[in-house]
Amino acid sequence: MTSPSTIKPKFLSKSNELGVIAVGFSGGQCKPGVDAAPTALISAGLLTQLKEDLGYDLFHDNTVHSYASIIPASDPDYRNMKNPLAVSAVTQRLSQQVYEHAQQGRCVLTLGGDHSIAIGTISGTAKAIRERLNREMAVIWVDAHADINTPESSESGNIHGMPVAFLTGLAVEEREDVFGWVKADQKISVKKLVYIGLRDVDRGEKEILRDHGIKAFSMHDIDKHGIGRVMEMALGHIGTDTPIHLSFDVDALDPQWAPSTGTPVRGGLTLREGDFIAECVHETGSLVAMDLVEVNPSLEAVGAAETIRAGCSLVRCALGDTLL
Amino acid sequence: MTSPSTIKPKFLSKSNELGVIAVGFSGGQCKPGVDAAPTALISAGLLTQLKEDLGYDLFHDNTVHSYASIIPASDPDYRNMKNPLAVSAVTQRLSQQVYEHAQQGRCVLTLGGDHSIAIGTISGTAKAIRERLNREMAVIWVDAHADINTPESSESGNIHGMPVAFLTGLAVEEREDVFGWVKADQKISVKKLVYIGLRDVDRGEKEILRDHGIKAFSMHDIDKHGIGRVMEMALGHIGTDTPIHLSFDVDALDPQWAPSTGTPVRGGLTLREGDFIAECVHETGSLVAMDLVEVNPSLEAVGAAETIRAGCSLVRCALGDTLL
Amino acid sequence: MTSPSTIKPKFLSKSNELGVIAVGFSGGQCKPGVDAAPTALISAGLLTQLKEDLGYDLFHDNTVHSYASIIPASDPDYRNMKNPLAVSAVTQRLSQQVYEHAQQGRCVLTLGGDHSIAIGTISGTAKAIRERLNREMAVIWVDAHADINTPESSESGNIHGMPVAFLTGLAVEEREDVFGWVKADQKISVKKLVYIGLRDVDRGEKEILRDHGIKAFSMHDIDKHGIGRVMEMALGHIGTDTPIHLSFDVDALDPQWAPSTGTPVRGGLTLREGDFIAECVHETGSLVAMDLVEVNPSLEAVGAAETIRAGCSLVRCALGDTLL
Ligand SMILES: [Mn+2]
Ligand SMILES: [Mn+2]
Ligand SMILES: [Mn+2]
Ligand SMILES: [Mn+2]
Ligand SMILES: [Mn+2]
Ligand SMILES: [Mn+2]
Repeated sequence: MTSPSTIKPKFLSKSNELGVIAVGFSGGQCKPGVDAAPTALISAGLLTQLKEDLGYDLFHDNTVHSYASIIPASDPDYRNMKNPLAVSAVTQRLSQQVYEHAQQGRCVLTLGGDHSIAIGTISGTAKAIRERLNREMAVIWVDAHADINTPESSESGNIHGMPVAFLTGLAVEEREDVFGWVKADQKISVKKLVYIGLRDVDRGEKEILRDHGIKAFSMHDIDKHGIGRVMEMALGHIGTDTPIHLSFDVDALDPQWAPSTGTPVRGGLTLREGDFIAECVHETGSLVAMDLVEVNPSLEAVGAAETIRAGCSLVRCALGDTLL
Repeated sequence: MTSPSTIKPKFLSKSNELGVIAVGFSGGQCKPGVDAAPTALISAGLLTQLKEDLGYDLFHDNTVHSYASIIPASDPDYRNMKNPLAVSAVTQRLSQQVYEHAQQGRCVLTLGGDHSIAIGTISGTAKAIRERLNREMAVIWVDAHADINTPESSESGNIHGMPVAFLTGLAVEEREDVFGWVKADQKISVKKLVYIGLRDVDRGEKEILRDHGIKAFSMHDIDKHGIGRVMEMALGHIGTDTPIHLSFDVDALDPQWAPSTGTPVRGGLTLREGDFIAECVHETGSLVAMDLVEVNPSLEAVGAAETIRAGCSLVRCALGDTLL
Repeated sequence: MTSPSTIKPKFLSKSNELGVIAVGFSGGQCKPGVDAAPTALISAGLLTQLKEDLGYDLFHDNTVHSYASIIPASDPDYRNMKNPLAVSAVTQRLSQQVYEHAQQGRCVLTLGGDHSIAIGTISGTAKAIRERLNREMAVIWVDAHADINTPESSESGNIHGMPVAFLTGLAVEEREDVFGWVKADQKISVKKLVYIGLRDVDRGEKEILRDHGIKAFSMHDIDKHGIGRVMEMALGHIGTDTPIHLSFDVDALDPQWAPSTGTPVRGGLTLREGDFIAECVHETGSLVAMDLVEVNPSLEAVGAAETIRAGCSLVRCALGDTLL
């Protein structure tokens, strides 16, 4: 039904190539199953569609990485974080994988896994974009949650609620094996961060968002202005000369469309709105990387297939699928 | 997740205080069960949330009022009305309860019960606001129905379809024990009344709305303009210097979000739109009272929990809960 | 609840009359059951409502036409089309039926049946409007699909995916018994065609839409602008001096509201948006005919009643039902 996009990527030298990384990792939170998402998404035909319908040359090692060999046997809590060594090691490795695709000038798609993996994906893209283009990239974080807790402000200790804090430098840690490896050239600015879809934000996170003037469009804003106007404002904030990393947590969608996820929150995006966000980002021509995270096919047996279909749809839209 | 509102109430002298009245009354219509709503809402944690998350000092007698002692044994139909003596006696008593909170300068939350109870709540607030501030208040009536039938225009004779007629003086009755107790200082003007969410309006009611030029935003208007623009228009009609009583019938929501109610009507507000309405009213700083009515936990066993959750959400939003 | 419309039809001489044709035909596609739709819609009370609530004088032969006598025993594929002789014969007969109503100056409602029947309905209306008013009419085609395949571009060979191609002259066939009977005065211009709701358009169809500059509002456009603004643009394109034939495929609605249809596609119109479209078309005063097609009560047993209710609602709205 679909055909290759007619949008010319502004920040990719190989517009036809797509690096794909399948990350079967769930250590950033406590519910098993989210590590099965890449296999489920691929079995549903996602990669075939990207290749055959959208015309991408896929660069994929045909592996769902569990990173078993680098996950330590013992991994005690540290500064309130659960699995600190595992998440740090996995994301450091992933950062390198993403970097290797991105520094070649190709778009990178990462299929998670929980949202902690964004520490790896965004750090990898940020570094490559700085090297290749001497630019800071922007991040559009589509999520019910802000994921910007510091280890200390977090109640759960789950690192999938902290990636933005480590990526922006709001959370700092010296220990190399606990995210100390994230260096300045791998970080992003809070000025270049835009949230869409927020509706379950911790009290401490609200303060962080206010104190740092971070651009955030909650569901209230979407109801107020409509998703069309919100995307205009979000992309206007970023500007047309800035590469975009899109980090899409499937729980941004309402549970009606994506029930099979670890921390569903009512009052979310319709699938139409989610697809629309992805389409608008594609239309900018500025997309350099996308994460799709938090699909957990083992939850809500009834809704797993629908959640997977929704996830595939979001990825296709971000990569150029159009209705007309 | 939430914190006390930063909005300063314009018409309340005790911005921190919240009078709460639990009304376990179902006599304004024929389906049993709506009297169980206050208990269900409170069991779901509503009052705890208002106290702990939103920081209110609650003034609540810890009673769900059934008003059994003032309900007459015999209560024959009168002018086509069912249970006229009971509904009149209960709302007269409720009017006094609401008045006692409101004249002290605190916001009043009433948990119904069917929508006939608004004869009590609105008359009580209207009187107190006139006395305290020498002002007429406005009413925002969020409902699938207009509830503005006169006893004669009503087909069912259920008084929950008539409260607006008695409150605006469109329905008049001399008998003191059949709403004759509602005096001029307890009434509201049709000029200060705004409907939102209408979609099942009787033929006679349509005429009343037209003849009196009553401001009404149907679902058609919400689809046409979006809920953001509709709230601008609704609040613009009321003006910034007018206290607002928000009377929220949960059946304004689509049955998808609030199935467990006596007269559900398809094509209603999404929960997001309902919350948005409540949030916008809160943001005016003009809210002086709120009713939440027509939650009936005994209908639609499957959907009762969701309807209760939706009701809690609407109240929290009206009282200052925000996403960011 | 409703009352006769106050909108004065601009292009009908008998504003009170409604021609009704029930078409129990499913030969334009492969799934049995869509031929049962007219009976289901009528049993649900549609015609009674049109008569009693909206005040129409119905002109209906009280027959659900199966056209059994004109359907050939043998009907081999021709130019890739399935059932070419049957669909051609049925639509030619239907075209005459519609024409007979329309040339008398009354509005025509056709209850399908699959969407191939629009070859009959639109050709009949177009001819009558040309004769009566010396005007070309416009068509608003509300559908998940564009139905504009030529026999050669179609993958399935189902004629319900081709009616617009035959009606606009994009598909041409000499054989009188395979749509050769559709003459110039029965056709419509691609300039006067507006699509709403598209989201599953074949690659070849996308090219046709682009090459001919056909006005099409996809779900992306509706998300971007809101349905209110989309209808302004759609009706602006048509202009106020043009009669409108509304061809409504129930699969334009999201499967959430209309699951019982042959080719459901996710991400569709809400029922509110569908009703809104129909209401806006009515408000123009330009409506001269409406088709409601692709309700298939035999699919999705659970959702059949809801689909039928949705279909009834769409028809009522197009014919003047209003919320206020
Ligand atoms: Mn999340
Ligand atoms: Mn997340
Ligand atoms: Mn109601
Ligand atoms: Mn009501
Ligand atoms: Mn269709
Ligand atoms: Mn169709």
